[in-house]
Amino acid sequence: MVVVMRTDATEADVERVCEKVREVGGEAFVSRGTVHTIIGLVGDSALFRALDLDNLPGVDHLIQVGKPYKMVARSLHPEPTVVRVGSAEVGRSTFTIIAGPCAVESEAQAHEACRAAKEAGAAILRGGAFKPRTSPYSFQGLGKRGLEILAECRAETGLPVVTEVVDPRDVDLVAEWADALQIGTRNMQNFELLKAVGAAAKPVMLKRGFAATIEEWLMAAEYIAQRGNSEIILCERGIRTFEPSTRNTLDLAGMAVAQQETHLPVIVDPSHATGKRALVGPMARAAVAAGADGVMLDVHPNPEEALCDGPQALTPTDLLGLAADLRALARALGRPMA
Amino acid sequence: MVVVMRTDATEADVERVCEKVREVGGEAFVSRGTVHTIIGLVGDSALFRALDLDNLPGVDHLIQVGKPYKMVARSLHPEPTVVRVGSAEVGRSTFTIIAGPCAVESEAQAHEACRAAKEAGAAILRGGAFKPRTSPYSFQGLGKRGLEILAECRAETGLPVVTEVVDPRDVDLVAEWADALQIGTRNMQNFELLKAVGAAAKPVMLKRGFAATIEEWLMAAEYIAQRGNSEIILCERGIRTFEPSTRNTLDLAGMAVAQQETHLPVIVDPSHATGKRALVGPMARAAVAAGADGVMLDVHPNPEEALCDGPQALTPTDLLGLAADLRALARALGRPMA
Amino acid sequence: MVVVMRTDATEADVERVCEKVREVGGEAFVSRGTVHTIIGLVGDSALFRALDLDNLPGVDHLIQVGKPYKMVARSLHPEPTVVRVGSAEVGRSTFTIIAGPCAVESEAQAHEACRAAKEAGAAILRGGAFKPRTSPYSFQGLGKRGLEILAECRAETGLPVVTEVVDPRDVDLVAEWADALQIGTRNMQNFELLKAVGAAAKPVMLKRGFAATIEEWLMAAEYIAQRGNSEIILCERGIRTFEPSTRNTLDLAGMAVAQQETHLPVIVDPSHATGKRALVGPMARAAVAAGADGVMLDVHPNPEEALCDGPQALTPTDLLGLAADLRALARALGRPMA
Amino acid sequence: MVVVMRTDATEADVERVCEKVREVGGEAFVSRGTVHTIIGLVGDSALFRALDLDNLPGVDHLIQVGKPYKMVARSLHPEPTVVRVGSAEVGRSTFTIIAGPCAVESEAQAHEACRAAKEAGAAILRGGAFKPRTSPYSFQGLGKRGLEILAECRAETGLPVVTEVVDPRDVDLVAEWADALQIGTRNMQNFELLKAVGAAAKPVMLKRGFAATIEEWLMAAEYIAQRGNSEIILCERGIRTFEPSTRNTLDLAGMAVAQQETHLPVIVDPSHATGKRALVGPMARAAVAAGADGVMLDVHPNPEEALCDGPQALTPTDLLGLAADLRALARALGRPMA
Repeated sequence: MVVVMRTDATEADVERVCEKVREVGGEAFVSRGTVHTIIGLVGDSALFRALDLDNLPGVDHLIQVGKPYKMVARSLHPEPTVVRVGSAEVGRSTFTIIAGPCAVESEAQAHEACRAAKEAGAAILRGGAFKPRTSPYSFQGLGKRGLEILAECRAETGLPVVTEVVDPRDVDLVAEWADALQIGTRNMQNFELLKAVGAAAKPVMLKRGFAATIEEWLMAAEYIAQRGNSEIILCERGIRTFEPSTRNTLDLAGMAVAQQETHLPVIVDPSHATGKRALVGPMARAAVAAGADGVMLDVHPNPEEALCDGPQALTPTDLLGLAADLRALARALGRPMA
Repeated sequence: MVVVMRTDATEADVERVCEKVREVGGEAFVSRGTVHTIIGLVGDSALFRALDLDNLPGVDHLIQVGKPYKMVARSLHPEPTVVRVGSAEVGRSTFTIIAGPCAVESEAQAHEACRAAKEAGAAILRGGAFKPRTSPYSFQGLGKRGLEILAECRAETGLPVVTEVVDPRDVDLVAEWADALQIGTRNMQNFELLKAVGAAAKPVMLKRGFAATIEEWLMAAEYIAQRGNSEIILCERGIRTFEPSTRNTLDLAGMAVAQQETHLPVIVDPSHATGKRALVGPMARAAVAAGADGVMLDVHPNPEEALCDGPQALTPTDLLGLAADLRALARALGRPMA
Repeated sequence: MVVVMRTDATEADVERVCEKVREVGGEAFVSRGTVHTIIGLVGDSALFRALDLDNLPGVDHLIQVGKPYKMVARSLHPEPTVVRVGSAEVGRSTFTIIAGPCAVESEAQAHEACRAAKEAGAAILRGGAFKPRTSPYSFQGLGKRGLEILAECRAETGLPVVTEVVDPRDVDLVAEWADALQIGTRNMQNFELLKAVGAAAKPVMLKRGFAATIEEWLMAAEYIAQRGNSEIILCERGIRTFEPSTRNTLDLAGMAVAQQETHLPVIVDPSHATGKRALVGPMARAAVAAGADGVMLDVHPNPEEALCDGPQALTPTDLLGLAADLRALARALGRPMA
Repeated sequence: MVVVMRTDATEADVERVCEKVREVGGEAFVSRGTVHTIIGLVGDSALFRALDLDNLPGVDHLIQVGKPYKMVARSLHPEPTVVRVGSAEVGRSTFTIIAGPCAVESEAQAHEACRAAKEAGAAILRGGAFKPRTSPYSFQGLGKRGLEILAECRAETGLPVVTEVVDPRDVDLVAEWADALQIGTRNMQNFELLKAVGAAAKPVMLKRGFAATIEEWLMAAEYIAQRGNSEIILCERGIRTFEPSTRNTLDLAGMAVAQQETHLPVIVDPSHATGKRALVGPMARAAVAAGADGVMLDVHPNPEEALCDGPQALTPTDLLGLAADLRALARALGRPMA
């Protein structure tokens, strides 16, 4: 950490900072510039942060040199993590397709969508039973009945299931039925929910908040890891920008940055990022080429009758064709499919 | 609602839309343009929305003409709502100062901050017992002990208390101790929490999500109102933009838009919006001049020792001076203080 | 175009709108909803726009149904345009690599960079002689001498050259030396410059403004086309968002949207979008997989000595490897290289 | 400046940085942390920036401690600048109203608007003769004839005139007719235009780019000052964000930050920021309360017939009422009107 002093800081101000640092066992190196004096701190930066040095007289601002996360940081754990979801693995050396219905609407719809996912080569099924919706007047999911249907789909296809949990009170219930717990974009900083899934015995898929920086996303993962659950898959799903032609702006470079910063696997959801069927294919192809560890795709047997996000769902036929493209691209880059 | 057809839509596509609309009791008026055909729908737009017409063949997109919220909409309830928080009122015809510590850190600190708030003319106390923090390594609040301290501050000052709730499981506990429940910016779309406070018997202060549109903010208020609690105060607290010199960008025009769109009172939090003490005064003065229904201010007896957001807290002396300015400005505009 | 009337609009207000529309030869269809009355207009929407109907009493707002651009719109010219830059072609059925130094710094540096570009299979050279820089204290380019050096590089490699023009007074000079004129991101809405290159006899590469919507980008292209120059290549180069870990956020989905909206070719600049060498490869690979019509890459024989944007420049060796990847991906998707 | 080394930097990497710094006469202080080594540089930071140290092996990133602007920086020139526009003064100790038509459309319209401005107490007239418009199909201004009409308005009212220049080739012409030259938001980084007005003998009003940081805005002012013209008024006019209900988001806190950072006067344009008449009053009142040095307001005798931005123009009656409010607020804060 570096402390930048104000231009009018006194010698006593500088000394006060150094003393505080030494009190917690750190070292302080003072560099007196022509305009600013700066103080370089050496030691445990978590301790320094707790000192709230920016509140001391004469201090202009602090500069964080290190990262505010630890357990999920790649610099401290260079070996990539492979997360096991039921029988499937998600990690840096394979490419995983996750597919299924956005929301579970009925037994027939879910089964058909999951069959299509399996046929296309998906390794994991997705499907929403509890749906967070912007409007209280929209379809809110089937709840527990949705979980049961997903379990039937798993039984039929032999593929593990990831599904969203939106309430800390439901974590045990969802963990009982699902193979992995999804935290949605609007809940990325619902810290009580993060703590609850951190204490669960199932892996977690943590979607990036649509207005979260990568650093905040990794801090959210740190909340989960800190509670003892380090089986975390990160999922980039677009960020909010000024551009109105897509629902959000898919931040593929952000996905690549996250891969550099953390040892956890990072996948991409082109369906929710774009909100438009015609863009799902291009962005899924882009994701594999950019080096993502997987993609998550919405499929619906009959998109025009979907109760949720129909405009972005692929048909089973679309999905088959896209999956073939993804395999061809992965092959061209020498990356095996999961 | 207006349905815009694709340029290649067929006559059958147009007829299909009209039929669907008529099936739910609506009327459809077709206008054939040189490039696009559009269909104007007349009837209950909630019913039309449920039809998911944008999934039908030949449909390019839908245009919402009406508002997606109802209970909180000013167009349907032109009379402004006055929300009672304990003995205090917040509404469109007065100006209310809410002040207190960002976080309750200790008995002494909270009492001193609340005394300063009262002395400056605040009508309501604020103070955090449960604190949502970006980093799991930051101070997370005193929890239940914090609520008790706030109750002592209320007893001493005679002023009602608003405090944040972050977990649906804590709503009953917090409602027992506090006069109003605050929903923080990161929880604005934590729908399970919204539903829980919607069922509580205390008024709710709903902060705008830092990346939420005004429409989404009002939809979040609709979730609360729909559960039976229409005692809601909205609080603008800055939105995330590209500008790095302030923590967030205070959207005062957004506050004014919200006042036009809803009958609920709308206040401003300049402390959290800017994150900088030197900007709190200018933005609080701007808020009253722009017509806000109140401001919420952080005060700390000793900001440089604050455990949370010290750089934005006013000292008791700062607060006294600022409150005098706010009264002078309100007087110049003919607006009485609450 | 659709006119949405205010809830308190009178019958006379509605009639006034209809009359104005009929005066310019249009037709107006009135749909009276339960809350709003809307009026659908049929005819030439450019004429309707000139009426400024949103200023009439009783009008709430207008909804544009059609597109505000015409000459560059794909809906009116479905056939993709192939732009010829010297001997090279850029279009929807091939994939073009453009490479060269960010700025021309010296004869030796430019020649070495352009040789590397040619060796890697680039079809067009890039290089800046006039550099727009945020700081007046940064290197501003070699000006005319830079153009001469670029011409020497063209002579040596046989490849055409694209270079930036920043002043309407320089368009003739730059057009004399270069094969295509680049409009940089900060000048996308420098309308006098757009008009000047619209009158030039060389193709134009129009970079997207870093805060421009796709619609505004296409309007800027329309300015050029309207002056008689329809040889335009669009270049996506990242947009400004709240995320600080990359210089800008590459909007690959926006590239795909632009390809749907216009018949002009659309390429991607991953170097300037990300500002980081380690992200250029992933984003260039993503661009070809997403269907872009080409990429533009910075190469520098010695990036650590670059006078401009060194941290994003590839070395000649990097470029060779990346170009091989791009060819492999293009082949996997059945797309020939230009 | 601080150099942060990579975790894998060698001793030789550190020494190389120090040597480069010493070669240009600086001093380098090395602090070896547990994770990172950092090097504090003391000396002329402009020289250090030219070294491009971030390209050296082992360097992770640089941290700018000082400001990249000098001539416009308040830290180096604490005394506020008062800019004279004809007979009027704009500065930190008064409050100035600038008003007039958005665009000069005709003699009658401009005269009527300017008379209204004078009657309301404006000290300076505004009016556009050259209009930058997003669409090539919109009204582009009257050009030279517009300048003549503005000169007539000046003669009639006795008030000085500020008007926009959009092309470096027109600077002499506009400077001949006008009392101050306006640089519009889309041209804030049109560096050739900045250089041209920097060489003119008239003061400049520099609008903030709608996607520019405050630092970039001040760098743009530095371009002008560097050419010898330090008579610069800054004008905040809203930034682009995700919020769709206003044209842009007025960044009043950004105005206050600019006032802290520079000695130049900073005013606010609520008309263009919001794009809506009903918000102009609230935001103008907020501006004076926040401490802005002035406001610039659009007035039109007949807004519903305006050729440009009619929906945001005040009527003469609106303007009179608003100006009275602004005077009352300024009085309450003890600030005299210009």
